[in-house]
Amino acid sequence: MQRSTYNVAVVGATGAVGQQMLKTLESRDFPIDQLKLLSSKRSAGKKLYYKGQEYTVEEATPESFEHVHLALFSAGGSVSKLLASEAVKRGAIVVDNTSAFRMDPHVPLVVPEVNESDLNEHNGIIANPNCSTIQMVVALEPIRQQYGLKKVVVSTYQAVSGAGLEAIDEMKEQTQAILNGEQAKAEILPCSGDKKHYQIAFNAIPQIDLFQENGYTFEEMKMINETKKIMHMSDLEVAATCVRLPIETGHSESVYIETNKSGATVQEIKDLLSSSPGITLQDDPDQQVYPMVTTAVGKNDVFVGRIRRDLDRENGYHMWVVSDNLLKGAAWNSVQIAESLVKLNLLAK
Amino acid sequence: MQRSTYNVAVVGATGAVGQQMLKTLESRDFPIDQLKLLSSKRSAGKKLYYKGQEYTVEEATPESFEHVHLALFSAGGSVSKLLASEAVKRGAIVVDNTSAFRMDPHVPLVVPEVNESDLNEHNGIIANPNCSTIQMVVALEPIRQQYGLKKVVVSTYQAVSGAGLEAIDEMKEQTQAILNGEQAKAEILPCSGDKKHYQIAFNAIPQIDLFQENGYTFEEMKMINETKKIMHMSDLEVAATCVRLPIETGHSESVYIETNKSGATVQEIKDLLSSSPGITLQDDPDQQVYPMVTTAVGKNDVFVGRIRRDLDRENGYHMWVVSDNLLKGAAWNSVQIAESLVKLNLLAK
Repeated sequence: MQRSTYNVAVVGATGAVGQQMLKTLESRDFPIDQLKLLSSKRSAGKKLYYKGQEYTVEEATPESFEHVHLALFSAGGSVSKLLASEAVKRGAIVVDNTSAFRMDPHVPLVVPEVNESDLNEHNGIIANPNCSTIQMVVALEPIRQQYGLKKVVVSTYQAVSGAGLEAIDEMKEQTQAILNGEQAKAEILPCSGDKKHYQIAFNAIPQIDLFQENGYTFEEMKMINETKKIMHMSDLEVAATCVRLPIETGHSESVYIETNKSGATVQEIKDLLSSSPGITLQDDPDQQVYPMVTTAVGKNDVFVGRIRRDLDRENGYHMWVVSDNLLKGAAWNSVQIAESLVKLNLLAK
Repeated sequence: MQRSTYNVAVVGATGAVGQQMLKTLESRDFPIDQLKLLSSKRSAGKKLYYKGQEYTVEEATPESFEHVHLALFSAGGSVSKLLASEAVKRGAIVVDNTSAFRMDPHVPLVVPEVNESDLNEHNGIIANPNCSTIQMVVALEPIRQQYGLKKVVVSTYQAVSGAGLEAIDEMKEQTQAILNGEQAKAEILPCSGDKKHYQIAFNAIPQIDLFQENGYTFEEMKMINETKKIMHMSDLEVAATCVRLPIETGHSESVYIETNKSGATVQEIKDLLSSSPGITLQDDPDQQVYPMVTTAVGKNDVFVGRIRRDLDRENGYHMWVVSDNLLKGAAWNSVQIAESLVKLNLLAK
């Protein structure tokens, strides 16, 4: 018999995404029986609140997952690699928000608006895609269904919260230093695991994550490979340039697409997107209505606007896609996957 | 007989670009006989320095241009429309940094690295292109010459100084307010002439200048139309998405191109660009070397990096182009035009 409430563990509860996971579980009133907040040894002992009740964060160990039905992981790839299989071994379904398993052919990579039914193929672990990928595929999927999709060229405008709470602090400290006429210290961005660090305040850094041999960054390759996997289009042409900006939260994307069928009008695409799940259309140039992070942050939807025809190619379109990278890009998509698991009778069955 | 020094007027001397014009004329040791600093009535009376000497800014009138050989205009389109012909009537050559005459078929639109010889066709006025256009065409021209150019898709990351000194102040005030936990006031950006104003601090605004009927902004149409004119390629496919960011000075551009000839290697393009005029190649991913505004500002060159092949199209390439929008994007390109006029014996002949 299907349970009506579930034991849920949040791994990485003290992080930027973990905190949004708790808020989202609360705002969605997810049917939780027992809640466990887990973290690294370093953060263990911290107190967090859920529905007004205090919880002490515990160090995540294999045994932490006894009797857990659903484990939401967002504590870095190494933690997921170490502990996700331990959770599965003990009967939990893992929704993993790191890149550890995303390209594993046995792990579904899911954005519910696009490929919810892939959840049926899970083997214990379900991967939550990269933040910048998620918001893009939500906007692309209705267009793919209606007109077919041939090529995608995306340039991103990404917030520092994607690099964690420490990156937010670094940006704010640098910003204040520069406003004070002082030198800015850079120790984290663009990528804590890389050799050099650059000032993000009042700057644009064309590097997110480490460089790969082909000259693309890992973030760019994530967008390319994950988009193909989620949309089940191994032959889709995708290229990405990922850029970090002095924005606290909210990713924006300038997306150029070529469709298979030519000639759809902008109005037809607007109508299509405005009636598609998870999308809010914000597109009225006369009234200066377009998506911005200042209006998107704190909301679950993907905001799409500035839709216009390419001036040369009959099947070319440009658009501007904005979403909260901690919500639809991470916490909300993970909780949404959990809700889909419940709906599809896949959780604790 | 060719003169060896010239009477020069700078119109809009107190503005963001005007101040850089003075610095650039000084650093280039432009052969000035008499210097006149002109402005609107509002700014007249201000004191500015050139080579250690104090100058009093005068209100620009038709008579201001008597005996002037070279007039550098950067005081807004309406001032240029009113006074450029008055200057020409009195024998001056005008280098105009506004959009007033750029698309006039009788006015050359010049980036010296690309189309210096168009200066020979001038009728008194020479237009300096839009900042975001200039840095892009400098990077594109060597590729066009070697491989032919078919399509350009650009997404920009533009600094607030392109909107003037008041926009810089607004950004700084908003930034400090937000760091203090206060409300940010927006009265200028994205576009002082438009109805609504939005916070630029910690935000990305996909609007620069006013919207046109086709859904593109005027800034985007400037990039599209000016690129075709400067490169003498009316059939070049160009599309642009222009975005304002919380950066004081320095524009960045994510550029996707398709060439006519296929198969050039990244190394061949790097070699080509590193030996081309006005370009500094900064492209070593292993060492995290790529262009950024923090390293480009204050320099005259266009910085190019992150050059890589499109993963799907044989003739597709991506690159990242950064330059100081007040220098190569405005003041330096104008002074460079003036230097070309001297070199080509076109000034005060």
